[in-house]
Amino acid sequence: MEQRISFITLGVQNLQRARDFYVDVLGWKPMKDDQGVVFFLCQGIVLGLFPSQELALDMGQDFRACHFRPFSLACNLRSEAEVDAFFQDLKSKNVRILKEPQRVFWGGYHGYFADSEGNAWEVAYNPFVKMDDEGRLLLHE
Amino acid sequence: MEQRISFITLGVQNLQRARDFYVDVLGWKPMKDDQGVVFFLCQGIVLGLFPSQELALDMGQDFRACHFRPFSLACNLRSEAEVDAFFQDLKSKNVRILKEPQRVFWGGYHGYFADSEGNAWEVAYNPFVKMDDEGRLLLHE
Repeated sequence: MEQRISFITLGVQNLQRARDFYVDVLGWKPMKDDQGVVFFLCQGIVLGLFPSQELALDMGQDFRACHFRPFSLACNLRSEAEVDAFFQDLKSKNVRILKEPQRVFWGGYHGYFADSEGNAWEVAYNPFVKMDDEGRLLLHE
Repeated sequence: MEQRISFITLGVQNLQRARDFYVDVLGWKPMKDDQGVVFFLCQGIVLGLFPSQELALDMGQDFRACHFRPFSLACNLRSEAEVDAFFQDLKSKNVRILKEPQRVFWGGYHGYFADSEGNAWEVAYNPFVKMDDEGRLLLHE
């Protein structure tokens, strides 16, 4: 996998309060608010705030079984085929797959794997996200 | 605070195994290994692996009181004075300070605060880390 991080998503208990903290206290400017999720573009990577239960669901995990506050790291690739090829490689290395690559309701394609510590990594193709040649995320156009 | 993320540090139970995962499975190249911590430069931000207990200690927290796997986000500023001024601002906004700004044994200066969800943010000045004009981390020189 390219040595890149596209998203850091924090599972939150109170989305509005968390949004207000980043906006009012830190002075950050959110991207166009999508319903139920808040994104901040930080020079080529995005910090996301997403309700914990929905993040766990997105990962294909049972939130009630999470003994910790969920968060995820993500690397965005450039096509569905790249995502599939990467998961084939992970499987050949016996990596724990949390969620098989699949279409997602928002129009993208993704899967999740766990690193050796159980941290969740999303590997995604999102046709709506633009990247520069080095893989840094750009604002939606 | 500038809308930037400099470091994502994952608290790990088994540092060697976690290092091997990122190197052998994902094919990432670590920065010069420092003792007891592993860093991967990801295009301007760094993913760090650090034993959970030591990460909690670095945050000024009691690991036994952590009900979750610790991790931290960090924003590196350009001087100790910038760090101090930022913490003054946080205090005026009644933000929970986890660790007051202070010198650190590795030669830098840092403090920690918690966002509204309790996520730990380190704000640091590290004289050994080079940044470009936009705040992206560069390789050690």
